[in-house]
Amino acid sequence: MPEPDQPKFGAALNTDFYELTMAAGYFEAGKAQDRATFELFVRRLPWNRNFVLAAGLTQAVDYLLNLKFTGAEIAYLKTLPQFEHTRPEFFDMLAGLRFTGDLFAVREGTPLFAGEPFLTVRAPLIEAQLIETYLLATIGFQSTIATKAARVVRAALGHAVVEFGTRRAHSPEAGVLAARAAYIGGCAGTSNAETGFRYGIPVFGTAAHSWVMSFPSELAAFERLQQLLGESTIYLIDTYDTLEGARRAASLGRPLWGVRLDSGNLGELASAVRRILNEAGLEDSKIMATGDLNEYKIQELMAARAPIDVFGVGTELATSADAPSLGVVYKLVELEEAGGRRYPVKLSHDKQTLPGAKQIFRYADHDVLARSSECYSCGEGGAVCEALQRPVMIGGGLAESLPTVVEARRFASESLGRLPATCLSLFTGEPAWRVDISPELTTLYETVSKGAAV
Amino acid sequence: MPEPDQPKFGAALNTDFYELTMAAGYFEAGKAQDRATFELFVRRLPWNRNFVLAAGLTQAVDYLLNLKFTGAEIAYLKTLPQFEHTRPEFFDMLAGLRFTGDLFAVREGTPLFAGEPFLTVRAPLIEAQLIETYLLATIGFQSTIATKAARVVRAALGHAVVEFGTRRAHSPEAGVLAARAAYIGGCAGTSNAETGFRYGIPVFGTAAHSWVMSFPSELAAFERLQQLLGESTIYLIDTYDTLEGARRAASLGRPLWGVRLDSGNLGELASAVRRILNEAGLEDSKIMATGDLNEYKIQELMAARAPIDVFGVGTELATSADAPSLGVVYKLVELEEAGGRRYPVKLSHDKQTLPGAKQIFRYADHDVLARSSECYSCGEGGAVCEALQRPVMIGGGLAESLPTVVEARRFASESLGRLPATCLSLFTGEPAWRVDISPELTTLYETVSKGAAV
Repeated sequence: MPEPDQPKFGAALNTDFYELTMAAGYFEAGKAQDRATFELFVRRLPWNRNFVLAAGLTQAVDYLLNLKFTGAEIAYLKTLPQFEHTRPEFFDMLAGLRFTGDLFAVREGTPLFAGEPFLTVRAPLIEAQLIETYLLATIGFQSTIATKAARVVRAALGHAVVEFGTRRAHSPEAGVLAARAAYIGGCAGTSNAETGFRYGIPVFGTAAHSWVMSFPSELAAFERLQQLLGESTIYLIDTYDTLEGARRAASLGRPLWGVRLDSGNLGELASAVRRILNEAGLEDSKIMATGDLNEYKIQELMAARAPIDVFGVGTELATSADAPSLGVVYKLVELEEAGGRRYPVKLSHDKQTLPGAKQIFRYADHDVLARSSECYSCGEGGAVCEALQRPVMIGGGLAESLPTVVEARRFASESLGRLPATCLSLFTGEPAWRVDISPELTTLYETVSKGAAV
Repeated sequence: MPEPDQPKFGAALNTDFYELTMAAGYFEAGKAQDRATFELFVRRLPWNRNFVLAAGLTQAVDYLLNLKFTGAEIAYLKTLPQFEHTRPEFFDMLAGLRFTGDLFAVREGTPLFAGEPFLTVRAPLIEAQLIETYLLATIGFQSTIATKAARVVRAALGHAVVEFGTRRAHSPEAGVLAARAAYIGGCAGTSNAETGFRYGIPVFGTAAHSWVMSFPSELAAFERLQQLLGESTIYLIDTYDTLEGARRAASLGRPLWGVRLDSGNLGELASAVRRILNEAGLEDSKIMATGDLNEYKIQELMAARAPIDVFGVGTELATSADAPSLGVVYKLVELEEAGGRRYPVKLSHDKQTLPGAKQIFRYADHDVLARSSECYSCGEGGAVCEALQRPVMIGGGLAESLPTVVEARRFASESLGRLPATCLSLFTGEPAWRVDISPELTTLYETVSKGAAV
């Protein structure tokens, strides 16, 4: 199934207003044709994360390919006091603005570490600046959720995890995108039907407590469900009494997929329910557990050998509750202007940036962050390495078609599988992965810092 | 400016898949015409919240008014294994499905407490069930952010707070809605231009670090900004050295609005910068502070008498970082079927619900949660009270036009102003507001619980 288009409503105007005032300023200052390079990265990982799993590139590219202001949007901007003195030529420029730049990025599903760029934009200054907010929100959010999903999936030790969080996501649209990102992070599917439709991701779900309550008895509700869904039937057994519910489900025999626990002590209940099902000869029926789960609780249930086959994880996954945002930033690292090329640096307290466009070279046990112009002989003679940033858009057009979510999910799984156990642990300690700065990049930083007095 | 339409893409299918399997089940079971009443509420407030500020009703109503499955969406559903045995008549029904029910709700900007319904839906069972996920995500998210905003605004003690969080929001669309909700919660405006366009909310912002860095010197960047923005100019002064930046800004004199600090010890820097500005005769220029702020840090800065005039709050506000979700639920409380009216109850461990449609009566110092059929003589003779739930949609149509965001913001401010200081404190302790259960509602619960054995 092809991926239907994303909504285009308000994409160009969905940006921080200062991107637009700066655009006017660059236009007036004659800097519109300066060519800027920006990088998107996190300065530090959240304190409870050992890596971040990159996701959201597909939506970022879709945005760039379709960037365009409507007449109504430009008419709105003209009404704002900040644009009172702005010349009409600026708005004419804005009406014709498209993204004409180059985009380099790591693949969706790539684990990254502090300071490593998710993507690099090289474009006329106005274009490169204007897209900052949307790119940060798109990449930052999906990477947050993909990372959380990877942790939850790892805790489940091979048992399937299904994303159930749309109802608690930060808006319905965030729910769709969270489900997409969770799939890339390793979930088996989602409860969100829209995500299934847009991206071809498997959807799951059978019935809620209200289903059970809408019938005169639990047994009547179960019978009706089985007639409807046959082998897909999952009985939600905790509406009244979980063990009674399990006995009623077992009394109906096959066909069924299994039962779902949604409250109480999941570990103890799972054991008791397993016995009830087995005594009824339903050894092959499954137990799904849901209810405010996260990677820590799942790890505890697995450690206690709870006989749970599938986990449904909602709120904590779709909001990444223990790390609900990533400190993604988008920083100017190079500027080609009439007078030549410059490497701007920011020296703010605790917010220094490394100048210059970069490439990430990944070795078996560490990364090297280097200047993009440096040539590391990946695989030739010495240690094998891989250059993680790849060309995605050239001159505003797609360089090659992007991987599907299925491919991104597989790539994430393979990439995570090559990380050491310290990286994949749910808990953080010493930095779990080494990122070296190349000598050339170090030299550039030192040179530029000394000359940066203004 | 009229509010442009919301995006309609994928709204009907943006739901948990089990809503659709249940719809098929209700259809097959001949329950499509049963009339159900569902309520949306939180069982418990987050541990660090004393109230929740209701928001998102406008988007919920927009969704209900436009609910409709497209042909492509129905074709997708037919491909799913769970619908393998479903009769075509179900999909024909789905193609014609619209929301035809009634909606009662509290106004946007109403402070609520545990157990009090944000909204009540009364509709044919299939319709009422299908909309669960979207309503939860819409009301839950915007109420989360409006609540956070109310806390941040209160901490600022009358100084303006501007929402700056789109870049860290859970997707660009969540950023737009977060800014809307933050405005209802009391923010003065937002940096999100799209939110300004859609809802007529004031937008703010001037220039970023990349603006400063794109010029050969900080002074050149400041001069250019002043030429562009005149009295709207805010100099971001921490790119290189904050106090040097303040002196450069001061050297340019008027016109200017003020300066912005974005890093370092904001309290100490604000005092030093204030002195620099005052010595230059710029007593009326303002200081804005930004940089990972939240209500706790702002309260501390205010307590220390930091001379900060305006706060910009981003990540922590747009994600409600210390309480990133609300435990909103949507529960079946009444069912009118061929055999009469029933009051379903759920007895799951720790997840009991009160049966029956409800009304909230608000008195000066407490609420009464009553059956919707009860008549409290608000204002007649005894203590004055207000019924918070009002009819919003009748038979699928709008009962009356909804308040604007400006009206919702004013209503929130007035409503919060009537709460006691214990409710408005940033810190939680004893329950800060009493919610009594009416005798009739108590009787119904007791009656139904006894008879609920199945």
